[in-house]
Amino acid sequence: MSLEKKALALHKKLNGKIEMKNKAPLKTAADLSLWYTPGVAAVSTHLAAHKGDIWHYTMKRNTVAVISDGSAVLGLGNIGYEGALPVMEGKAMIFKTFAGIDAVPLVLATQDTKEIVDTIVNISPAFGGINLEDISAPRCFEIEKQLQERLSMPVMHDDQHGTAIVVLAGLLNAFRVAKKSLNNAKVVVNGCGPAGAAIIKLLAHYGVRELIILDSKGALSGKRSDLHGFKSELAQLTNPNNVSGELKDALVGADAVIGVSRGNIIFAEHIQLMNDKPIVFALANPTPEIMPDTAKKAGAFIVATGRSDFPNQINNALVYPGVFRGALDRRVPRITIDMKIRAAKKLASLVRRPSTNAIVPSMFDKRVVPTIASAIY
Amino acid sequence: MSLEKKALALHKKLNGKIEMKNKAPLKTAADLSLWYTPGVAAVSTHLAAHKGDIWHYTMKRNTVAVISDGSAVLGLGNIGYEGALPVMEGKAMIFKTFAGIDAVPLVLATQDTKEIVDTIVNISPAFGGINLEDISAPRCFEIEKQLQERLSMPVMHDDQHGTAIVVLAGLLNAFRVAKKSLNNAKVVVNGCGPAGAAIIKLLAHYGVRELIILDSKGALSGKRSDLHGFKSELAQLTNPNNVSGELKDALVGADAVIGVSRGNIIFAEHIQLMNDKPIVFALANPTPEIMPDTAKKAGAFIVATGRSDFPNQINNALVYPGVFRGALDRRVPRITIDMKIRAAKKLASLVRRPSTNAIVPSMFDKRVVPTIASAIY
Repeated sequence: MSLEKKALALHKKLNGKIEMKNKAPLKTAADLSLWYTPGVAAVSTHLAAHKGDIWHYTMKRNTVAVISDGSAVLGLGNIGYEGALPVMEGKAMIFKTFAGIDAVPLVLATQDTKEIVDTIVNISPAFGGINLEDISAPRCFEIEKQLQERLSMPVMHDDQHGTAIVVLAGLLNAFRVAKKSLNNAKVVVNGCGPAGAAIIKLLAHYGVRELIILDSKGALSGKRSDLHGFKSELAQLTNPNNVSGELKDALVGADAVIGVSRGNIIFAEHIQLMNDKPIVFALANPTPEIMPDTAKKAGAFIVATGRSDFPNQINNALVYPGVFRGALDRRVPRITIDMKIRAAKKLASLVRRPSTNAIVPSMFDKRVVPTIASAIY
Repeated sequence: MSLEKKALALHKKLNGKIEMKNKAPLKTAADLSLWYTPGVAAVSTHLAAHKGDIWHYTMKRNTVAVISDGSAVLGLGNIGYEGALPVMEGKAMIFKTFAGIDAVPLVLATQDTKEIVDTIVNISPAFGGINLEDISAPRCFEIEKQLQERLSMPVMHDDQHGTAIVVLAGLLNAFRVAKKSLNNAKVVVNGCGPAGAAIIKLLAHYGVRELIILDSKGALSGKRSDLHGFKSELAQLTNPNNVSGELKDALVGADAVIGVSRGNIIFAEHIQLMNDKPIVFALANPTPEIMPDTAKKAGAFIVATGRSDFPNQINNALVYPGVFRGALDRRVPRITIDMKIRAAKKLASLVRRPSTNAIVPSMFDKRVVPTIASAIY
């Protein structure tokens, strides 16, 4: 049976893949008196008087909401909340398995920015953090920003920041292997969605010398008159030489290219335009921008994808469990850009001897979550 | 250690009492491929094309949201969402233990009717039903009504209907023991909150001859000029003889009194005004309207309370797990009044030989949930 058929059959058989579990048994009237009435009244009375203790006496301490509006699900686009729910459940499984975090999947019946923000604020009290997921640009930027302003708990759009952190970690080790300086590098990001935008912001903050980002119309630059909102902001962070044109124009002399767009749009000719020891992150899922063997044949020094069946899997699942583990444990109200840089460096440092086929640790490396968590302070 | 201290200590030790659990392990890359990417893409693609299958391939099939705005928590009043959360977690424990239902506790940062309705509609897609809890009157009526109009899934305010169903079940057996007809009875309900209102509506639909309900100003009647909204509706369903005055005036010749107000407000003198074999449900929690021994001494034939440490515990926890079990299993879009009457009759029928100290089954009777579930069609 194909993986697809097996996944369908198993999801149907189990009716989803996440459930609730009691932390204590309810076997006797005494159990009920303790956990429900009348015992719970003592807890409720205490919390009415000591509201901050909600962090200690309830689920809030260890629970995040994983929320999508179904507008940008995986690489499938705006397929609605139905298609988003299994992805949120999968994320909840990962949160539980790798970080011991209780994550509640929620999918929204609205794609309106204001309604999404109001809704999430209104249901926030039971949660210690908000993980946004699979929300399309540009609404994802505004939603995250407004939520961060209104909530005193960490809010992170994982498609942006989880991806950016693991990309930076991968680049740190890739440049180490190539014996080149990331700070002095030229890095091209192809794809101007949530991931591309966040990668640019993080690399700019890290201090990469020359960044170029392309949308479907080509390189963002001061010469483009069609750029508004977040694209105009990205243009200001990038392209110091005002390069115009398409990917082949941007890639001339580039040290690394990061594809966060769609499959099969990077070719051998592109790689041959790049600088010595080209680094290629082809992160579109499930079909990468270029297949690893093709890229290698064209001269790529290091290739990474988002897939588990090739070396160098650049997957945000390496990052978000640890980020929220650290955020919950230290009650940080916000995930700052310094935390993200620190998390990327720490993640990269877990690979003792990086090589062309080993630039990031495995998700099953038990050091990953505590190491990233330790960067969130 | 007192129950209160023990409850506080244990809630703090466990950081709440409910958590998430994966239905399948994530131990290998193959597991990840199946439950997360790329396998989940097949499920998402399928659901994008067959939206109704969200009921089969996701958590929705077996999950309800347990939602409060903290405005009427237990008997503690409007103590806010902090105090409400442990109660919602307790309900979730009961859902899981007794009905195998996954219930997600949610508490709201708003007490505005429209905001509550919009918020719940927006987060509804991951759930198969909505259990409202501890929301004060009269907003609870409007919130439930609007949600029922907007959602094609069962929405039940448990303080209203769970309580009304178990009260009707208890009355059916109490009248059987007393060898009197509930249809020909006079029943007085003291307390005009969510529970009192729902009890009146259910008993009126069942066909009880004479009902009187009292709020803090006395009996609702056609003579009262201060009645609006739901109280005006209740006045139309009740008090055919237009009795005025306070509890002692309403109780003259009554067969049963149901207290759903606050502790210590029914006295021996009240019971002595009632008809032969007085039936007294003193349901205020944790302190009943009258203590069972006092009521018995005053001549009460049957006494019930909401407490587990006296006989005849009238607790909505007998009802809501089964109601939602049946609703989820049969995908009924609404809990109708006929279902509620049927559920009450079936619950009562589980007590083979009702007696003065045994008018409802125990919560630990394993027949309760499937029996009530079988009434929801």
